[in-house]
Amino acid sequence: MLKFYCNPISVNARRVWVYLLEKGIPFETILVNLDGDHLDENFTSINPLQRVPVIIDSEFRVVESLAILDYLEAKYPTPSLLPKDPESIAIVRMVETITVVELQPTTIPLTRALVGLEVEPWRIEAAQQRVTAALQFFEELIGDQTFFVKDKFTLADIVAGTLIASLPLEGYPRLKAWSERLAQRDSWQQTVAHPEAIEAALPNIRKILERRF
Amino acid sequence: MLKFYCNPISVNARRVWVYLLEKGIPFETILVNLDGDHLDENFTSINPLQRVPVIIDSEFRVVESLAILDYLEAKYPTPSLLPKDPESIAIVRMVETITVVELQPTTIPLTRALVGLEVEPWRIEAAQQRVTAALQFFEELIGDQTFFVKDKFTLADIVAGTLIASLPLEGYPRLKAWSERLAQRDSWQQTVAHPEAIEAALPNIRKILERRF
Repeated sequence: MLKFYCNPISVNARRVWVYLLEKGIPFETILVNLDGDHLDENFTSINPLQRVPVIIDSEFRVVESLAILDYLEAKYPTPSLLPKDPESIAIVRMVETITVVELQPTTIPLTRALVGLEVEPWRIEAAQQRVTAALQFFEELIGDQTFFVKDKFTLADIVAGTLIASLPLEGYPRLKAWSERLAQRDSWQQTVAHPEAIEAALPNIRKILERRF
Repeated sequence: MLKFYCNPISVNARRVWVYLLEKGIPFETILVNLDGDHLDENFTSINPLQRVPVIIDSEFRVVESLAILDYLEAKYPTPSLLPKDPESIAIVRMVETITVVELQPTTIPLTRALVGLEVEPWRIEAAQQRVTAALQFFEELIGDQTFFVKDKFTLADIVAGTLIASLPLEGYPRLKAWSERLAQRDSWQQTVAHPEAIEAALPNIRKILERRF
């Protein structure tokens, strides 16, 4: 059976978790604790980048959430969560890429400040500007549609939706409505990180963020 | 004709430029100067994230280099630069993702230091560790193959190869040989950034990096 290395408070892992549930793919969960397990020799040999998620599918190892989603989508094409026409592909890939290269990195200085680590004020300001630009872009892209690609639920919704769930969406009424729609899905409800789990993980998050930019 | 908004010293734009040449897709280049053009109203209306590359193909706009590559690959499938089998897809996507979420962001503190901006020592150290982990991963992944996916030139080589060309590769003999092979391709030679162009752009790069993390 597919092995899924995850931690319930990792946004990157949650993407894959939601995907597995949406597709109905059977998997075995292997919990990787963030208090050192992710740095030990055993896990480092599985992922030298020392991060969840990882999947191992009949000996074949895939790291990085976006790569895992594309691998699984190629292996389990039905029901399809990745459209085939060029324009819809462009939409999905823009949303995925902006989420991981723009939106996600900007949460790092903001979270560093939140857990009490020192952050230069210009970084906070630049991060907030980048969050605003990315969310504004998404707000216009989704428009009056149900999902990013019209009424079709795709990888774009999974990738952006699992991150955006934790951001304040005042000023983005369409994204807010979309995020609330996603929150009602079974896959979202089964994978939501409980506030107590996040609270308990704060010292580990702080430790990871001490060396993270 | 396809409009390609680019700047010759942008690694992100070079990816798309190399791709267009490799595929033989006709395009019209629109130069976006980094001394303010990327921030003006005209370009911001095209890309609110204020970055090259952007393409406009019969009124349809795509931003973010990885999204542009996937859009073009769907629209111009021949010759294919994206394999179809799940394991090869996983390889291509791992290389693409690690390049843009891991390797590329770590060049920012290193380049900030290079152009004389202040960078906390822990950031330099953490960046160097992340570069090492990513390059080591790639070195093992490519093994004794010609390209990341056996002897097939793919998007993985374009995306990683255009960034890695500017990194020191001592200690990574396989990546070094691969990078030298890529440098001999017409598409690489036609798009190489001239040292004088980089030198001339340094004040603009410095200005952009002042607010970039």
